[in-house]
Formats: sequence, structure tokens, C-alpha cells
Amino acid sequence: MKIMVLNGPNLNMTGIREVGVYGSETYEQLKGYIEDQAARREIQVKVLQSNHEGQLIDWIHEAYFEGYDGLIINPGALTHYSYALHDAIKAALLPAVEVHLSNIHAREEFRRRSVTAAACLGQISGLGKQGYALAMDALAARDGGRA
Amino acid sequence: MKIMVLNGPNLNMTGIREVGVYGSETYEQLKGYIEDQAARREIQVKVLQSNHEGQLIDWIHEAYFEGYDGLIINPGALTHYSYALHDAIKAALLPAVEVHLSNIHAREEFRRRSVTAAACLGQISGLGKQGYALAMDALAARDGGRA
Amino acid sequence: MKIMVLNGPNLNMTGIREVGVYGSETYEQLKGYIEDQAARREIQVKVLQSNHEGQLIDWIHEAYFEGYDGLIINPGALTHYSYALHDAIKAALLPAVEVHLSNIHAREEFRRRSVTAAACLGQISGLGKQGYALAMDALAARDGGRA
Amino acid sequence: MKIMVLNGPNLNMTGIREVGVYGSETYEQLKGYIEDQAARREIQVKVLQSNHEGQLIDWIHEAYFEGYDGLIINPGALTHYSYALHDAIKAALLPAVEVHLSNIHAREEFRRRSVTAAACLGQISGLGKQGYALAMDALAARDGGRA
Amino acid sequence: MKIMVLNGPNLNMTGIREVGVYGSETYEQLKGYIEDQAARREIQVKVLQSNHEGQLIDWIHEAYFEGYDGLIINPGALTHYSYALHDAIKAALLPAVEVHLSNIHAREEFRRRSVTAAACLGQISGLGKQGYALAMDALAARDGGRA
Amino acid sequence: MKIMVLNGPNLNMTGIREVGVYGSETYEQLKGYIEDQAARREIQVKVLQSNHEGQLIDWIHEAYFEGYDGLIINPGALTHYSYALHDAIKAALLPAVEVHLSNIHAREEFRRRSVTAAACLGQISGLGKQGYALAMDALAARDGGRA
Amino acid sequence: MKIMVLNGPNLNMTGIREVGVYGSETYEQLKGYIEDQAARREIQVKVLQSNHEGQLIDWIHEAYFEGYDGLIINPGALTHYSYALHDAIKAALLPAVEVHLSNIHAREEFRRRSVTAAACLGQISGLGKQGYALAMDALAARDGGRA
Amino acid sequence: MKIMVLNGPNLNMTGIREVGVYGSETYEQLKGYIEDQAARREIQVKVLQSNHEGQLIDWIHEAYFEGYDGLIINPGALTHYSYALHDAIKAALLPAVEVHLSNIHAREEFRRRSVTAAACLGQISGLGKQGYALAMDALAARDGGRA
Amino acid sequence: MKIMVLNGPNLNMTGIREVGVYGSETYEQLKGYIEDQAARREIQVKVLQSNHEGQLIDWIHEAYFEGYDGLIINPGALTHYSYALHDAIKAALLPAVEVHLSNIHAREEFRRRSVTAAACLGQISGLGKQGYALAMDALAARDGGRA
Amino acid sequence: MKIMVLNGPNLNMTGIREVGVYGSETYEQLKGYIEDQAARREIQVKVLQSNHEGQLIDWIHEAYFEGYDGLIINPGALTHYSYALHDAIKAALLPAVEVHLSNIHAREEFRRRSVTAAACLGQISGLGKQGYALAMDALAARDGGRA
Amino acid sequence: MKIMVLNGPNLNMTGIREVGVYGSETYEQLKGYIEDQAARREIQVKVLQSNHEGQLIDWIHEAYFEGYDGLIINPGALTHYSYALHDAIKAALLPAVEVHLSNIHAREEFRRRSVTAAACLGQISGLGKQGYALAMDALAARDGGRA
Amino acid sequence: MKIMVLNGPNLNMTGIREVGVYGSETYEQLKGYIEDQAARREIQVKVLQSNHEGQLIDWIHEAYFEGYDGLIINPGALTHYSYALHDAIKAALLPAVEVHLSNIHAREEFRRRSVTAAACLGQISGLGKQGYALAMDALAARDGGRA
Repeated sequence: MKIMVLNGPNLNMTGIREVGVYGSETYEQLKGYIEDQAARREIQVKVLQSNHEGQLIDWIHEAYFEGYDGLIINPGALTHYSYALHDAIKAALLPAVEVHLSNIHAREEFRRRSVTAAACLGQISGLGKQGYALAMDALAARDGGRA
Repeated sequence: MKIMVLNGPNLNMTGIREVGVYGSETYEQLKGYIEDQAARREIQVKVLQSNHEGQLIDWIHEAYFEGYDGLIINPGALTHYSYALHDAIKAALLPAVEVHLSNIHAREEFRRRSVTAAACLGQISGLGKQGYALAMDALAARDGGRA
Repeated sequence: MKIMVLNGPNLNMTGIREVGVYGSETYEQLKGYIEDQAARREIQVKVLQSNHEGQLIDWIHEAYFEGYDGLIINPGALTHYSYALHDAIKAALLPAVEVHLSNIHAREEFRRRSVTAAACLGQISGLGKQGYALAMDALAARDGGRA
Repeated sequence: MKIMVLNGPNLNMTGIREVGVYGSETYEQLKGYIEDQAARREIQVKVLQSNHEGQLIDWIHEAYFEGYDGLIINPGALTHYSYALHDAIKAALLPAVEVHLSNIHAREEFRRRSVTAAACLGQISGLGKQGYALAMDALAARDGGRA
Repeated sequence: MKIMVLNGPNLNMTGIREVGVYGSETYEQLKGYIEDQAARREIQVKVLQSNHEGQLIDWIHEAYFEGYDGLIINPGALTHYSYALHDAIKAALLPAVEVHLSNIHAREEFRRRSVTAAACLGQISGLGKQGYALAMDALAARDGGRA
Repeated sequence: MKIMVLNGPNLNMTGIREVGVYGSETYEQLKGYIEDQAARREIQVKVLQSNHEGQLIDWIHEAYFEGYDGLIINPGALTHYSYALHDAIKAALLPAVEVHLSNIHAREEFRRRSVTAAACLGQISGLGKQGYALAMDALAARDGGRA
Repeated sequence: MKIMVLNGPNLNMTGIREVGVYGSETYEQLKGYIEDQAARREIQVKVLQSNHEGQLIDWIHEAYFEGYDGLIINPGALTHYSYALHDAIKAALLPAVEVHLSNIHAREEFRRRSVTAAACLGQISGLGKQGYALAMDALAARDGGRA
Repeated sequence: MKIMVLNGPNLNMTGIREVGVYGSETYEQLKGYIEDQAARREIQVKVLQSNHEGQLIDWIHEAYFEGYDGLIINPGALTHYSYALHDAIKAALLPAVEVHLSNIHAREEFRRRSVTAAACLGQISGLGKQGYALAMDALAARDGGRA
Repeated sequence: MKIMVLNGPNLNMTGIREVGVYGSETYEQLKGYIEDQAARREIQVKVLQSNHEGQLIDWIHEAYFEGYDGLIINPGALTHYSYALHDAIKAALLPAVEVHLSNIHAREEFRRRSVTAAACLGQISGLGKQGYALAMDALAARDGGRA
Repeated sequence: MKIMVLNGPNLNMTGIREVGVYGSETYEQLKGYIEDQAARREIQVKVLQSNHEGQLIDWIHEAYFEGYDGLIINPGALTHYSYALHDAIKAALLPAVEVHLSNIHAREEFRRRSVTAAACLGQISGLGKQGYALAMDALAARDGGRA
Repeated sequence: MKIMVLNGPNLNMTGIREVGVYGSETYEQLKGYIEDQAARREIQVKVLQSNHEGQLIDWIHEAYFEGYDGLIINPGALTHYSYALHDAIKAALLPAVEVHLSNIHAREEFRRRSVTAAACLGQISGLGKQGYALAMDALAARDGGRA
Repeated sequence: MKIMVLNGPNLNMTGIREVGVYGSETYEQLKGYIEDQAARREIQVKVLQSNHEGQLIDWIHEAYFEGYDGLIINPGALTHYSYALHDAIKAALLPAVEVHLSNIHAREEFRRRSVTAAACLGQISGLGKQGYALAMDALAARDGGRA
């Protein structure tokens, strides 16, 4: 099983940015965690980060052409306005799970609405880095019938 | 570890109601699945269902007084207007995860906003019954530091 | 033919409450009228009233399990916010008609929108107690092809 | 008893237009049904249709001057914006019942609000052509004390 | 003079819940305070609490039938959406005063609007438990002409 | 000086309709009053009424082609939604004054906004039939520099 | 007959301010015009101007106590938010006419709503200084039955 | 190929009305242009104009009954509120293209939303009279497979 | 204990203005009542009224500099828009209680929101003049620990 | 004549993405079609696609500096939020036509508003790939006076 | 060069009021700072403060009549609703700069919109007392061409 | 002291684009001005421009890693929707000042709200290129205590 994990704007600043909200682990540690969790589940994973909406869309299309089995995406603040990302996810015809480190339902008003989640299977928010691991379990379960 | 799982209005009709959205497994099967997943994780679980907002609030308070370690709640349609449930979850001082079988972000407008999730750690939606299992993992991870 | 008639919050105060709007007949008289109209149409009817949203949902589910042929429901003020009731009606897979004694389109702003009617065949409002009799005719017509 | 039945824009296309919503009976058949139901109830009926808001208003005034006892009106899409029709119904000082073939509460957002119903006794929606017959019963009941 | 005091959802968690907002006195202490204040004023008082909207409505109706002289109600979070409670208060034909421990005008947006206060004489908010005592004074003044 | 006076939907029912709001004088009397006031001011006047939006637009265009000097218009309820009337007034390139018998700013919410007044010189409302006379004075003052 | 004419904020800058909108006559000329028109009509008039909302309210109360027969008020920009002025006009129990030099319905969005006109008989806007003369005619007509 | 071209309210004033927006060609010239363009494409065309919403609806129905192959419609200001026209276009079961001379997306707020375009194949706006010719090409392409 | 009582615009017209809403007692009587109630409670009170927002703000600042222990304020219609008053109350660092004679939650839409209450301890509305006495009790209780 | 054709996010997935909405032709075929149509019209065309908002803006500026005569732009989902694209089109001082393959007025709510069209001559939507050809005709007509 | 500096409601409480937001310097110190900065720049300055909207408007008019070269205004909370102040600034025909000590874009929702800034050259917010000095530089630069 | 100056989309078109709003100086001249002003203040400055949101975010992160002391940012139209830029500024933990050449409070509705300013110290708008110089003074004052 082959999964692409995409992190959007400012995720690269994790560990520096709003430590009270996102914790003090660096992005490298987050990436390591995701790769480690994938390895434990025997999932082949590619973890990418960009601050460019267009780059994220390019990668989603690539996932389609290179035969990935699923997508895990944390679109950062693009979650709240990028209809282009929403269209890209739908265009890729792949099962996707949206992940947020923090509980977007308990923060500022503008963070409570996701325009991208409607193009995914579902959303996991507020469970920290573990959200990525749970999303893998969810995609794996769909793939192999396991739970 | 001791977790209370609460299912709100109309969840008892799962398997009968909107099969296209919720699948054809019955509520009894859903309940069995949850209990089975809890057993696998050595979590003590109590699975309750009610169509009464007040009953759900009573149970949440009970969870506080009887020393539960966490709450998993699928508030059904109360998700969208029950500020009383929101206050109850906050009042109980327990880590809670909100779960929805379907992807509420991709359905009718009124289902896209949760007034209860803001009182929880986070929300898992759109991943079917597995959402309950993932929520247990999330609560367990918080409890014992595991991932 | 077997029909369940459900009256929601405060209907039991009919004849006492806002007499200028609802008239001075008591709830007992309203219930008598409904039963009488059902008898004339050879319809078996069960008329229930509760101030509890959860109780109404329980009864709707019961209607499904006990083989009723239709539902007539006056949800009282729950009309305007109870998405749980809306889901219950849909879950029960029975033809339902929503009835209001007063013309909700000519009252306060908040009464002009029904979140429950969307789960019914249709709505009759503003025609007083006769609305229940007309709703029976409508369900009977669907049942037996009569008009 | 003498009742005027008014059908607004596009009702003349019934049976051709959106068959999935309105059924395949033609407008002539709908008109025949209404006249037949009136005859059964010994009600004198005049059934008119126009795509012109102004024509409908003229007829409503006429109903006042020619001594009609009541009005049944299906304003078609004028329901959602014609305050002029609303004023006309009020000006005519006659009991009126608004009828819709389809359940406007379960369709597009813009169809869920009626600006004309506030000038009527009440509204019947979603019960197909039978709505007209039920509206006659309602007007007759007011007229003669029958139910 | 006989007054019914109703406390809505989560009030029973006072002293446990959001101590920063509601203070650390328990519900039992709040109840004791209310009964004590009533005794000082020679008012006969019945203090009830429920997390069930329907139960609160039943009690309001009971107040009417058992000849209470007034109602003091703290509807908790139902304040913000329960039109059914609003109708119940109006139906009971009793002078009512709405009380809130905290200043709802200085909290979250959703708490700033009361749909129930419009059915009461008035509202007292933000004055802590004393709000109940002041409400008694207000009802007593109406009853006996005192100030 | 030559002025066209247009009265919109339901004005022909003046004296019959909502007597508390519009007074008991008939439309014929209103028309007589307008013609009389015009005569006193040596203004040539044509007073027209229609319930048809299209007819009113046709007449406004006619006013342009037949060399009228000004327009007085009471659009009735079309005031609140007829952007087509708004465009017609602008298209006619004539000074226009909007008149309302009642004070539309003190009635129902929907009557407080005029989409047609923005195409006029100004609006006179709430001064009864005298509003038409004042509007003539206003047009005359513009025409001849008098006040 | 004795009328108080009140001009609100920035009216004293007429002739200097936004000449394209308000014309180049000075406030003194406007005041002279109003006094002259009153003299012609044998109306006793007091013309006042203030940039202070409170001063305007004081004068309105004074009009009540000193037996004025009517009020003509141009509240300037207070028109759009001063509910206190609205209450003052209502409190004075005098017939009032709101006047605006420019057509507020054809300017910026925020100028299109008047919160003060609802407390008046009506509003005259867009007819320049003549609006004051027409308002006198309107008040005189009410007073003496003339038109 | 046979196409009906409908122009709504005030289009007959083209060349007179708001020349800065619509240009100085008369409606007759616009009509001539459309007929000429149709002739060049060997399309049989009927160009109609009315200021009456009802008349436009009647013609749309006629287009259905007389076997037209398509509809080009410029609804004028009816674009922004006529749900009846929207329903008529849908009822006629013909491919339709909405045309606007000016760019409605760059004018007043109220002109930016079309309630009628949703019933058409699409919309062409802002390209002047050529919009009609382009619309013919579009309908022809659908009809004959040409581009 | 020293309390400043501030009454805003139009309160001086009490007894004259909207008698149906505010009762027929004059402002002098209201002031006398407040002073009398203060005397009974051995509270030193200064009762002020102004129609000027700026004067009210000046007095609130004065209350701070002259060592008052609390503020009771009925801002009249300024309640609904005066953010300056809101800031003044916050600036004065004194406990304040907002009082309204009428139940603002049951009147016009614009009266249902208070922008000033958020700067106070709380609000008492709808209990007539007694509201001032209750507010004194509330401030006294805070001051001396009494209830 | 030299025209730049810009396609925004996800257009490169045409033929793969939402085939029901956009058809099954690939982007390469769409590009071929556009180049072919340009050739037939002897228009020099450059067809570009990017998923990057910034890239699209760079190209628009380039069009200005390299002397293009016009712009055809399908901004994809950027249509609904990219004010930066709107500003870029305005900055380039070139006639532009916005094109959409699908009828954006008949899809999801968020697709019905274009923030970019206001910076263009006009918009063509819902006419499939032919929209590009029609846009060329429109630009050519402006350029050479042809129709 | 001669500049008038106006400070609105509650600025006189600076140093006392919301120290966390506005700092602990007193208004006298702020005034001293402004006068000192003006002296350094050889600008003649008059620094005024009032809690009265009307007084501020009077001073703005005075600035016009007494030949000031510019205006620096911190309208306090009047920023958010005083259209009268907006009109006064426009009426005075002087270059004006709006200054706020705190960053109004990062505070409560109601503080994020300025109705007065639209009448100024621009706005400086969030830079503390230095904002006044920068505003002087801006006015000086306009006056003498310096930067 | 080391400051990064970022200019967003379309700023590179200054001098070409909307000359009436932004003036006719070219972007090169604007850049020269900024560098010159920095030199005068002995501030080390790096002036960058990009039309790519992602590039701007990358640079903001770079400013953090390369030890800049402050940020001056003119986000162009991204101001109004880029929550990603808002998060980036917050993530960089550097004092930032937002600058706009034009007065955004006096332009189109959509330009009046800034979603990025809330992450900055403050905002300077409407003062032309001088805004950048003033922003430097503000950052310098924070840095060295100067004013």
C-alpha cells in the first residue's frame, strides 16, 4: 500500500510556531513520526510539505498518475478557502483523509469551516500527530477490509 | 482504562435508516463491534444509546462521578444545535472525542457545523464504524503515552 | 389502515395557552376530534402527546417496528430546530404529514421555517384541528388510491 | 358556496415540466380533477390559470367584487417574491388557502419561504393534486361548520 | 406566595463545571441558598433541576395546574435554542423571571441571545446566585405591591 | 407642464383594503383628488393604475415618447422587488418622485426597503393622498424654479 | 400653528460641504428660506441646528413641553444609527416629518436605511430645500384638514 | 434550425437608456443585427420583446409547443428575481442560453446574481450585441456537432 | 457605600412617553423611588440623567475619580449602539449593573442586543423601577458580602 | 492578433476529473481544440495551464509586456476567491473574457459568484469547450470591428 | 504648518483604562508626547479631547474655519458607528489621518471596521503613541513634499 | 537593524496599474524609495516582490531563520483572504507592520477587511509610499526605544 502525505502552509514551522497550540516537536520530528508509523503498518509513504497551493495541487495530481492508493492531507490554513485544493482532491479520484493537529472546531471562527473536507472520506482533528497514524489505519482498513 | 461510548438520537435505527449513507449493519452489530474493539485494546467500555438529549447529559455527568477515563460521543443530529450537550461535555472534565459515521462536511449545509465538537479533544468523521476504534486509540494514547 | 398521531411540546396546553391563536378547545377535545375523525374514516389511530423530544423520537421508531401505515405529526416548537426529529421521521420509512393548528407563515420570524417538514410528504398549516382530518385523507389517498 | 381556484406561472405545463417532481398528469387533467372534486362537494368552482402576476391580481379583486366565498391559490414560483400577490389576497378580504403540489420545504432553499402564505388562512404542500380537494374541505368547514 | 424555581441542563454540575465562570459552590449549596432566601421572604418555594427539556416543560405546566404564583427559570444552554420552552412559559400564564449566574452578554456569541426571555417578565444575568433572590423580590413586588 | 401619475398593484382596492392603514376613500376619490390638485396647479395630468408590472413599464416608456415632463409613481408592493421597474424609470430619463400613502418605514420589515426609489429624485411616504400634491409641487419647482 | 425645525450634524456646513450633492447655498440661506416659507404659510417656526445628538433630543422634549404643533427634522447622519433620536421623537407625541436634502435612497448603502423615520409620519427625501416647505404643507394639512 | 430570441423589460429602450452602459444603437438596430446574424448562419429566428414577465413565460411555453430548437434569453432585470421565469425555462425542455449586453458581474451588487441562468445551458455577459451571435453559435454547435 | 445611577436618553420623558410600555409615573417619581430605596439600604446615591452620550461618559469617568463604589446604568437606546459607553464603563474599573424598565428581549429586534451590558457585571431587564432597587442589592452584596 | 489563453487549477485533469460535469476529453484535446479554433480564425494563440495562482498572475503581467491583444481566462476554482487574480487582470490593461466549461450558475452555491469576472469584459459559462472559441470571436470583434 | 489633533471618547482615561491594551502612560503624558513631537517637527499643534461626538464635530468645523492644514483624529469607539463624524471630516475639506493606539484588526469583531477612515487619507493603527508622530510626518510630507 | 520588506501580488505593476489609485511611479522607483529611506535610517533592508502566496510564506519563514529584526508587508489582494499568510506572520515570531499604498477603508467592500493585519503589530494604509518609511520608523522605535 502506497500513501502520499501532504502538509500545507506553515506546517514546516511546527515546533516554532504557536507552541501552545501545536506543541514543541519540530516538523522533522513530525515527519519522522509519520514515516515510523507507516513503517510499522508496512505502508509505503511519501511525506511532502509546501507553502504553495499550486505545488500541493501538482502533487495531488502526481499521486493519481503514479498510482498511489490514498492521500492524507493537512492543508493548513488553505483548509478554509482553497476551493482549488478541494477540486484537486476530487479530481485525483483517490480516497483521502483530512488531518488537523489542533481541534479546528474549538479555535477562531474562521477555522471552523473546512472547504476541503467535503472532497475527502472524512476528517480527523484535534488528536495531534496521532491523527496521521489514525488516518493510515482508516485508509488501510478501506484497502484490506481490516479494522 | 474505562470509557463511556454514547450514541445519540436515531443511532438505534442504524441498518434501517438511510442505508445508502450509514450502511446496513444494525445498531446491535455496531455495538458489538465497539465492544469487540474495546476488548482487543483491553479497554473497559459501556455503550449507551438514547434519543433523549437529557438522558445523554445525565450519562455524561454519571461518567464524571463514576470515574470514567474518557468519552466517545456520536451526538447524532444534536451535534448541530445542542449547546446543552456542549456544556455537559465541558462540565464533565473528561477527554472526549466526537465521532460521526458519515462525513458531515460533505452532506447538507446544516450538518457541516458542530456545536458540540468545540467541547471535545477533536472529531473523527466519515470513517464509518472504525471511527469509534480510532477514537479509542486516541484516548488510549493520551492515557498511556502510546501512539 | 393504522396511523400514529404525535403532538409535541405544549400541545397539551391547548385551550389554555394563547387562546387568541389556538382557540379555546382543550387538548382532550382535540384528541377526541382526531379519534372521531379517524373512526369516520375507519382508520385505526393512536394519539400521543409529549413535551420530550426524545419520547417523540422513540414513538416514531415504535411506529416503524409496530407496522403503522403513516404518521401525522405536529412537532410544536420543535419544528424550528429539531434536526433529531427530522432524522427520526426519515429513519422510520413511513409516509408522514406535518400539521400545524396556526398559520406558521404569518407569525414570528422564527416560526416560518420548518426543519422537520423536509422529512415529510408535506405540510398543512393554519387550518386548525381540521388539519389532522385532512392529513388522514391525504395518507388514506396514498394508501388506497382514493382521493 | 362559490370558490375561485387560481394557478400561477407554469402550472399550465404540468405533465410536461419536471415530471419527476410534479407527475405526468396534464394541466387539463388537474383542472378536471379540481372541478370533479368541487362537484362532489356541491361547490361552485372557477378554475383559472395565468403566467401573469397582474392577471392573477385582477382575478383576486374580481373574486371580491363577484361575491366569491373563498380562494384557493397555487402561486407557482411567485410564492417566493410576489409581495403584490400577498397584498392582493389581503385586499380581497376572502378566506384563502395556499396549495403546492410538491413539498416546498424539501426542495431548493429559495422555495422554502412563502411570502404569500402569510396573507392566507394556511398552506397545504406536498400532497399533490389532493391538496386542492383538502383546501375545499377546509373552506367548506369554515363556511358551514362541517369538518 | 408560592414560586417554582427551575434549573436547566448542567446546573446540577455547578461547583464542578467551569469554576472560573460559575464559582465553586455546589448545586446543593445553590439550592440551599435559594430555599433560605425564600424562607426569609416567607415565600413557599419548590426548587427543581433537570437536564431534560421535556421535564422542564412538564414542570412549567404543573406550575400552572397547581396554582403557583410565579416562575423563576434558569434554562441553562436551552436559553439559546429552545423555542419549546419559550412556548411553555407563555402557555403557563404565570409571571416568570429568567436568571443566569454569569453575564451572558459578555461570553461567547451564541450565549448573547435568549429565545426564552421574550416569554418572561424580564431577565437578570451576571449577578451570581443573588440573581435568584432578586427575582423573588421582583415577583413578590408584583404580587403584593411592595418594592 | 405634463405629468404622468402611475399607481401600481392593489391601489385600485383603496377604500376596501386595509382601511386602518389606507383610509376609507375609494380609488376613484383618490384619482379625483389628484386631478383636482393638478388643475389647481395648472398641471396637465394623466392618472393610470395597473396591477401588471409590464403595463407600468410600458406606460413609463410611453411617458418618455409622448414628451411628459415628469413622473409620479406609487409602485405598491412592486416597490420592494421590481428591479425591472427601477430600470424603466431610469430608462425614461424623466424626473420622478415615488409616493406612498402609508409610512413604509414604520410597517413590516419587507416594506422598509425600496428598490425603485433609487431611480427617482426622492420619495415621499406616510403623508396620505397629500403626498401626490407635494410631489407635483416638487416637480413644478424643478421645472420652473419656483418653490 | 407652531413648528420646530431641527437640523442635525454637519447641516451647518451646507454650502461648503459636498457641493455636488447639497448645492452651494449656505446654511444661513437655507435657514432664511425655511423662515420665509413659514411666513408665507403663517406658520410660527423655530429653526435650530446642532451637531450634538443630546442637544437635538433636548430640543425635541422642549417642543413637547412648549406646546409645539409639529416637528420637521433633518437628522443628518444620525438618521442611520441614532435609536435615541427615534425614541425621542416617539416620546414627544408630536407629528413629525423627516426631511433630507439629497435622495438618501440613491447614495451609499449605509444612507439607505433610516432608523428615525419609523417614528415620524413619513419622510421626504431628494427634493432639496423644498422638502422643508412640503413638510410644512403636510403638517398644516393634518392640522387644519386642508390639502 | 429554429431559435426563439426573447428580450425582457426595458430592452426596447436600448439606445435611449443608460447609453454609457448599453451603447447608442436602438432596439430596432439590435433586432436587425440578431436577424442578420441568424440569416448568415441559416438559422430561422423569431425575435420578441416584452416588458411583461407573464408574456415572456407564455412565449417560452409556445417555443416548446411549436417545436423550436433552442432559446436565447436576455431577461433584463427579471434576471435577478424572477423564479417564475426560471421555472418556465426548465419547463420548456429546450436548450437555452442567457445573454446580457453588459457585464453584470461588474455592476451593482444586485445584478451579480442570476436566478434564471441556473435553468439555462450557460450565460454570456458583457460582450454587447455580439453575445446573441455567440449564443446562436453555441446552440448550433449543440444541434449539428459543428463548432 | 456610594453608588452613581445614570439614566440615558429619553428617560426624563418617563410617564409621558409610551405609557403602555413604561407606565405613567414621571421621571421625578422614578428618581424619588430610587433615592428612597437607596436611603432604606443606607446607600449614598447620586441620580443623574442626560440625553447626551458624552455627558454620560464624563459622569462615568467622574465616578471613578470621586471614589464611587458602583454604577447603575440605564443607557436608554444608547444600549444598542454606543460602543463609546461600553468602553467608558470598562475604563471606570467599577462594578456596574445595567437596568432596563421594559423587557428588551420581548420588543423590537433592534432592542434585543446590548453592546453595553458586556462591560457590566450583568443586566436586569423587564422588572420596572424595581430593577434599580434590585441592582442596588446586587452591588451591596458584592460590597459587603451580604445577600 | 495575439491572444493568451490561461487555464487555472485542475484544468489539466480534464477528462479524468468529474467526467459527468466536464466530459471525457483530455486537457491535451482541449488545448488542441483551442489552437485549432485559433488557427481557423488566424489568431496567434498561446495556451498555458498552471495550478499556481502566482504563475497565472506572472503570465498575465507577461501578456501586458509582450504586447498581447487579449486574454481568455478560465481561472478554475480561483474564480471564487482570488482577488489577486482580479487585480492582475485589471493591472494588465487588456480586454479579457472569462470562460467556464460548466454552467457555474447551476452548481454548488460557492461556484455561483465570480470575483474575477468583474475585471473582465464579460463571462461565458456552461457552453463547454466552445466557450473558448466564442471568446476568441468576441475579442476579434472588438479588435477588428467584425462580428 | 498647523495641525489639530482630536482624541475621542475615553482617551482621557488612557493609563487607567485597560492597561494591558493601551499601556500605563496617562493621557497627560500622551498629550505631552504629541506636543513634543510636533515641536521637533516645527508643527503648530492643538491637542483636544472630548467624550462628546458633537463637540468633536464642532472642533472639526472650527479647524476648517480657522485655517488648519490638517487633522489627526483618534475617534475612540465612535470609529465604529459615527457616520456623523465621517460626514464632518469630509465637510471640513482638510487632509486627515486616523490613528489608533491599539491594532483594531486584532481585537473584538466590532472594532475591525472603521466608518470614519473612509473620510480620511488613511489610517495608522497598532503602533501606540508613535502613530500620532507618524501621522504628522504623513501630513507634513503632503504639505511640503518631504518624506 | 535588519528588515525584510515584502510586496505581494501585482505590486510589480505599480505605475502601470490603476494609475488613478496607485500613482504613476514604477515599482522600481518604489523599491528605490524604500531602499533610500532605509539607508537614511541606517537600516539594512531586503525588498522582495512575488505574485506567489507560497513564495511570500517561504520568505517570511526565511526572515525568521536568518535573524531579521522585523517585517514590513504589503500583501496586495492576499490581504483579504490569505489565512495562510496570517499564520506565516504569526509563525515567524517577528514584529511586522502591514502597509497599503491606498486607503483600503475607502474602496470596494471586499478591501475593507484585512485577515493578515491581525497577525501584525499594526497597519498603515492610505499614505502612499511614505507608509513604508513610517513603518520603518515604527519598527526602529520598538527596537531602539526611539520615537
